[in-house]
Amino acid sequence: MRQHWANPDLHLDLDQFGSRPGRALEDGLRAAVRDGRLTPGTRLPASRSLAADLGIARNTVAGVYAQLTAEGWLTARTGAGTWIAEHPAPAAEAAHREPASPPRPRYPLHPGLPDLTAFPRRDWLAAGRRALNASSVSSLGYPDPRGAPVLREALAGYLARARGVSVSPEQIVVCSGFAHGLALLGRVLRGRDVSAIAVEEFGLPEHQRVIAGSGLRLAPLPVDGDGAVPSDAVLADAGAALLTPAHQFPLGVTLSPERRRRFAEWAAGTGALLIEDDYDGEFRYDRHPVGALHALAPRHVVYGGTASKALAPGLRLGWLALPARLVDDVISAARLVRGGPDVIGQLTLAEFITSSGYDRQVRQARLACRRRRDELVSALRREAPAARVSGIAAGLHALVELPPGLTEETAIGRALHRGVEVQGLAPCAAAPGIGHAPALTVGYGCPSPRAFPAAIAGLCAALREPG
Amino acid sequence: MRQHWANPDLHLDLDQFGSRPGRALEDGLRAAVRDGRLTPGTRLPASRSLAADLGIARNTVAGVYAQLTAEGWLTARTGAGTWIAEHPAPAAEAAHREPASPPRPRYPLHPGLPDLTAFPRRDWLAAGRRALNASSVSSLGYPDPRGAPVLREALAGYLARARGVSVSPEQIVVCSGFAHGLALLGRVLRGRDVSAIAVEEFGLPEHQRVIAGSGLRLAPLPVDGDGAVPSDAVLADAGAALLTPAHQFPLGVTLSPERRRRFAEWAAGTGALLIEDDYDGEFRYDRHPVGALHALAPRHVVYGGTASKALAPGLRLGWLALPARLVDDVISAARLVRGGPDVIGQLTLAEFITSSGYDRQVRQARLACRRRRDELVSALRREAPAARVSGIAAGLHALVELPPGLTEETAIGRALHRGVEVQGLAPCAAAPGIGHAPALTVGYGCPSPRAFPAAIAGLCAALREPG
Repeated sequence: MRQHWANPDLHLDLDQFGSRPGRALEDGLRAAVRDGRLTPGTRLPASRSLAADLGIARNTVAGVYAQLTAEGWLTARTGAGTWIAEHPAPAAEAAHREPASPPRPRYPLHPGLPDLTAFPRRDWLAAGRRALNASSVSSLGYPDPRGAPVLREALAGYLARARGVSVSPEQIVVCSGFAHGLALLGRVLRGRDVSAIAVEEFGLPEHQRVIAGSGLRLAPLPVDGDGAVPSDAVLADAGAALLTPAHQFPLGVTLSPERRRRFAEWAAGTGALLIEDDYDGEFRYDRHPVGALHALAPRHVVYGGTASKALAPGLRLGWLALPARLVDDVISAARLVRGGPDVIGQLTLAEFITSSGYDRQVRQARLACRRRRDELVSALRREAPAARVSGIAAGLHALVELPPGLTEETAIGRALHRGVEVQGLAPCAAAPGIGHAPALTVGYGCPSPRAFPAAIAGLCAALREPG
Repeated sequence: MRQHWANPDLHLDLDQFGSRPGRALEDGLRAAVRDGRLTPGTRLPASRSLAADLGIARNTVAGVYAQLTAEGWLTARTGAGTWIAEHPAPAAEAAHREPASPPRPRYPLHPGLPDLTAFPRRDWLAAGRRALNASSVSSLGYPDPRGAPVLREALAGYLARARGVSVSPEQIVVCSGFAHGLALLGRVLRGRDVSAIAVEEFGLPEHQRVIAGSGLRLAPLPVDGDGAVPSDAVLADAGAALLTPAHQFPLGVTLSPERRRRFAEWAAGTGALLIEDDYDGEFRYDRHPVGALHALAPRHVVYGGTASKALAPGLRLGWLALPARLVDDVISAARLVRGGPDVIGQLTLAEFITSSGYDRQVRQARLACRRRRDELVSALRREAPAARVSGIAAGLHALVELPPGLTEETAIGRALHRGVEVQGLAPCAAAPGIGHAPALTVGYGCPSPRAFPAAIAGLCAALREPG
């Protein structure tokens, strides 16, 4: 237990209690405890300090403290200070209690969530210390809306090296996760009178909501084994297309070279924008890594990445690599949408990248995820052979088509009964009426190493039962 | 100089170089250096590791490294690793250079910016370490859109104690600075078919932009010595009013008790919303602190605060204390506007508040600012007696009315000539045609203690010259 030596800052409106300061202070403190503004355990300022703040004699304050201590409102320990006593203050207690949240399932298998026990706390803290100590004073002021220059520099190097995305630091905008970047792009597109955006017929519901929230209509593109189909009918109305080329979310297919070429041609020919959500591009398990679509048409592709998979979503750090002509519009949108990331997190990530911590983390996470994928696939093959797994060449999740006769709802319920939380494919549909075989999107990145075997066993058991 | 031992993650698209892996790797590396994806000084993976990644023999990789080192593309140090050599790669170099930013004035006197040299780096890092070590694993996942529970708990205690704002933690939404909160509120108001918001006739231009950007019309309220005037004509159309009751920005007056009562009655009577921007409420220099408007009508006031003044704007941490009925709408808006703050910053601030670091920081900053205010006022009185200072009972800035004959533009130019950056009142007008005597908004919180005397001397000199 730490000692709290500092004087807390206290707001007491004494005017309403008349002109005798001692009496006013006494009544003011009682009222503040009674209505819950001062809660049990709150430390009061030293009498000298409160007296100076209020412009009254120190003895007056000391007398009030003594009186209220005698009445049981306060507790004092000589030399240590004065606290609000554990006095019954029902109103405050009731108001301050957080409602009980439902119990968490023991084994969450969320697609897109990494193993948070692998977050490199010590290295991250050390990078933060180095970054903050090396930073200029002015870097703590109102931040550059494009993001900290040192981070954009580090990202430009990283993206070129690791993802084949060649942009200058001035083309990068750091955002609070990719979805924040998507909100910025939605605003820019609406400002350019774009009314519809093509999306893959299954996608991340949060992204669909953000797009719709920015006033754009979603135009769903079919997805087959070669990825999104560049349907002329759908693209005809659309001023942009949001794609997950490396590893379609949630179906897991890779956009074929031929399809990439056709999307790039469409964008170049019509002036439309391709938005490449490279959410798990670093997590590729086969021998030949798939590059970013960006390289094919850098003037027409916005490349979006995130630190949520390799590090943690709680960092709220993502980035857009933009065609140069779009940068000013995105910055203008950022001044209105607001919500850019904090500076210390940005400086820490820059230091983490330049000191190789990020690459090390990516490698370790990728290796761990590949092992988990292999375990998931062989467990399902062995224990629930009627389920069909796909989309496993990359990423943190697999698509598991359900055994005949089993609905998503039933499978989710059976898994939950075993403490395993999984999500169905249905909520990922970009529009009502998009048909599909019942399936689960099983995230295998998320449980801790200790929980992983039990999570997989629970899932297999749920899928083994007859429909 | 740190050693970079980790293997960097490398993207090489080898398919396009044919079927001989050694040759493909050689050509791939040369191409990546030539087009700037691999910049001079970049470290290459160890040959064993790259060989494993690419599924080729280690000797093949070692042979390629040796060949390219002989050609001068790479540099190798035995036992230490292999780097891209300082080879001319003009395209990459040119693309990666940040354009030179204009030189900063030596003495910025920005209103609203605190002395960033006083940011408690060591204490903040220590609080961050304690917070991260004490945090649960799941807290690093996708964050609660209301903000980290532990921070909302800490803020509820702090706001009740220090600002007389009594709300439960469930009524608090943590945002990325107050302007982000304002963007959320703008979206909520538009969703409730509010079309106009009353604002003080002078205000922060960034806030005016955010409001206009969310589709609301600004209806300016006159401001006099008692603060904003609750004009019936203006309020008739407005579904909300944004006010700075404790210390009007930028004029510096305090909203009188009578005016507070009238605004509260208007809100209660019409169902309109009062938005209280308490941006510098902790920085009160007279004996009787002014409480928040919130206490007068908690069901009709959104109270907004920020860590930007007591700590640093770069943290991007602010908060809204909301009437309970508004919480769900604000959360829904946050899911669309996006851009909520990172978790580590939130946990750190919670730890900083509960361990008394925040109160200590507020006290120190307030004391330092009071001294600076006194120095500014006496320097102006002595050196530029024709200038009139006001708005000095609180905050980090003063309003300085210019000596007769001097325009804002001339005064700003003269100050800049002395390395002092100040802002005029004119850009703060909420609409064209709002008249006012020429004045500067002089922020005295910002220069470092060493720079402060020279900054004030420069300002006085600029205002002393005849118009």
